[in-house]
Amino acid sequence: MKTDQYSLLKEKLASKAYSSIFVLVDENTDKFCLDIFIKKTNIDKFNKITINSGEENKNIDTCLMIWDKLNFFNADRKSLLINLGGGVLTDVGGFAASTYLRGINFVNIPTTLLGMVDAAHGGKTGIDFKLLKNQIGVFREPKEVILDSVYLTTLKKDEFINGYAEIFKHSLLTNKKDLNFNSLIKLDFHKDVNFIIEKYSEIKKEIVELDKFESNQRKILNLGHTIGHAVESYSYMNPNFKELRHGEAIIVGIITELYISYKQLDFPIIDLKNIKSNILKYFDQVKFDNKDISLIYDLLAYDKKNEGEKVNFVLLKEIGRPIIDQEVSEEVFRESFKFYNQSL
Amino acid sequence: MKTDQYSLLKEKLASKAYSSIFVLVDENTDKFCLDIFIKKTNIDKFNKITINSGEENKNIDTCLMIWDKLNFFNADRKSLLINLGGGVLTDVGGFAASTYLRGINFVNIPTTLLGMVDAAHGGKTGIDFKLLKNQIGVFREPKEVILDSVYLTTLKKDEFINGYAEIFKHSLLTNKKDLNFNSLIKLDFHKDVNFIIEKYSEIKKEIVELDKFESNQRKILNLGHTIGHAVESYSYMNPNFKELRHGEAIIVGIITELYISYKQLDFPIIDLKNIKSNILKYFDQVKFDNKDISLIYDLLAYDKKNEGEKVNFVLLKEIGRPIIDQEVSEEVFRESFKFYNQSL
Repeated sequence: MKTDQYSLLKEKLASKAYSSIFVLVDENTDKFCLDIFIKKTNIDKFNKITINSGEENKNIDTCLMIWDKLNFFNADRKSLLINLGGGVLTDVGGFAASTYLRGINFVNIPTTLLGMVDAAHGGKTGIDFKLLKNQIGVFREPKEVILDSVYLTTLKKDEFINGYAEIFKHSLLTNKKDLNFNSLIKLDFHKDVNFIIEKYSEIKKEIVELDKFESNQRKILNLGHTIGHAVESYSYMNPNFKELRHGEAIIVGIITELYISYKQLDFPIIDLKNIKSNILKYFDQVKFDNKDISLIYDLLAYDKKNEGEKVNFVLLKEIGRPIIDQEVSEEVFRESFKFYNQSL
Repeated sequence: MKTDQYSLLKEKLASKAYSSIFVLVDENTDKFCLDIFIKKTNIDKFNKITINSGEENKNIDTCLMIWDKLNFFNADRKSLLINLGGGVLTDVGGFAASTYLRGINFVNIPTTLLGMVDAAHGGKTGIDFKLLKNQIGVFREPKEVILDSVYLTTLKKDEFINGYAEIFKHSLLTNKKDLNFNSLIKLDFHKDVNFIIEKYSEIKKEIVELDKFESNQRKILNLGHTIGHAVESYSYMNPNFKELRHGEAIIVGIITELYISYKQLDFPIIDLKNIKSNILKYFDQVKFDNKDISLIYDLLAYDKKNEGEKVNFVLLKEIGRPIIDQEVSEEVFRESFKFYNQSL
C-alpha cells in the first residue's frame, strides 16, 4: 500500500483543479469515517450530501436526491464527487456522478472490505430497480480509488463477511501461484489485511483491464454469482428462510458452481473438497431442502446476467482457469446443492 | 443518401442478432411514422413503447416508464431499442437504453429535420431535471442512425424551423466552401432537403469525431446556444413574452453572438449584416426591451455549459473559424441585442 494514498487527491484539491467538491456519506460513514477523511486530506471546503445506508436505498429516489443537491449547490462540469462509503454508496454515487451533466468526475473511497476489493473498481455503477439488482447503471471508471484500511477499524466484525467471499473468489480466478487459493488460506485475514486488500483488488483490476482488449474476460468475475445471486434473492423473498448476507450467498454459489465444474469440466475433486472445507471455516453452512432448490432454480431465469433464454455459468477447469458461457442442466444443478449440503 | 438506409438494420433483424426488439414512439410518430417504418424494415415482431411528445415529457418519469416496460417485456443485454421520433424522443430513449443493464444497443431514426441534422448524432443522450435542460444524461453513440427524409412529409411546415436553425449554425462552422453559409443560402430548403440533411449532419459528425482526438472541439457546436438557451428559457418563464421555439431562440443567439464576434474578434461586418438579413428571411424578428435583456443576462449564469463562475462563449473569427472559451462583458452583451433589434 502506498505511503500516502491521498497524495494525488490532495494535490488536486490544493491546485483548485475542481470548481467545487462534494462528499457523499451515509449515516455511518458520516459518523465514523468523515473525520478521518478530513484529517487525511486537509480538505477545507466541501458540500456534504448524506444518504441512507443499506441496499434498500440503492434506488432512483436516492439518486434524485443526490442530483438535486448537486443542482442546489451549483455543481458544474468541473465539480468532483467523492464517494465515502461501502458498495451501495459507491454504486449509487458513481451512477449519480456519471449521469449528472453527462458525467462529472468522481473518486471512490471504499470503507468496507468488500468495497475495497470489489465494488469500488471496474467502473460498474448503478442502482436497483423493481427488485432487480443493478438493473439501471452505466460503466464509468472513477477518477481515482483510494484504498485505506484505516476505515476497516470502524466496521463490526460481521461486516467483513462480504469481503471474504470476494477475496476467496479472486483467489480461485488467479493463476498466480503466490496469490491463488492455496496461498490465500495460509494468510491471516486480520494481520495481513493491507496485503490482502492490495493484492486481491489488483486481481480484479487486471481482469477488468484485460476486458478492454479481450471482450468477455470480465464475465469470469461472475464465478459464484449466477447461483449466488439467486440464493441471495431467494433468502430475501422467502420469510421461512434465514436472510443471507451477500457474501454468504456468494459462498454457496462458489461451492455449488465448483461442484458443477467438477462434473462438467473435470475440476479436480481433491481441490473441490479442500476448498469447501477451508471456506466453511469462515462461514456457517446453510441448509437447503428440495423445495428451496427448486425455487432457486426458477429464480435463475431472472438473473440479469443471462442473455435471452439461456442461463450461462462461469466454471473452472482448474484453479485459475475459468471457462465462460457454460450451460448447466437442472439435474446437475440439483446435485450441486446435495454436495453443498453434505457435512464436512 | 444511401439507396436503402435500412439495409444494415434489416440484416441484423433477419439474422436474429438481437434477443428482442423495442420500438419507442410518441403519439405522433405512432400515428404517422410507425407504419412507414414497419414497411421499410419488414419487421415482424417487436414491443412498442409509447411516450408523450413534447419537451415537458423529457424527464425522469418518462425514463422510469421506459425502464419499466423494458423490464416487463424481459429486455436483456442483447435487446435493441429503436427510437422513432424527434429530438426529445431520441434523447430520452437514448438515455433509457444507455442506462438499462448498464447499456443496451439503440438505433435512432429521427423523424424531424432537427433530429436528422442534430439531435440524433454525437452520442448526447439525456433528460431535463428541475427546469434545467439535459441536466441528466450520458454520452453514448447509437449503434446506427437512419436518415430517411420520407418522415419529413409527416411534419407541419412550422416544425421545420428548429432544423433550419441548426443547419444555419453548421454552415457557419464549416470551412468547406461548397457547404458554408454563402453556399447554403443558394439552396432550396424544400427541393434540396436530402442533400441538406446528408451534408449538414456530416458536419456535426465530423466535429464530434474530431473531439475524440482533440478535446474541446465539440464545444464549437455551442455557437448561438449560450445566448440561445437563455433566450429560450426566458421565453418560457416570462408570461408576457412570446414563447419561442428552440430554433427561433438559437437564431437570436447566433445573430447576437456573431455581433459579439465582430466586436471582440473582428468578424467581418459585411458577413454579419449579410447573415442577419438572409437568416431573418426564414424567421420572424423578436423584440427585446431593456428589461428582457437584463433578465436574459442573469439567466446565463444558470446555463449548464458554463464552468464555475465564468460564462464562456463560442465566437467566430470568420465563417468556418470558431474560437472557444471567450468571455463577454455585460456591456457588449447588451449591445449585441441592440444590433439584433435594429430593423433590416
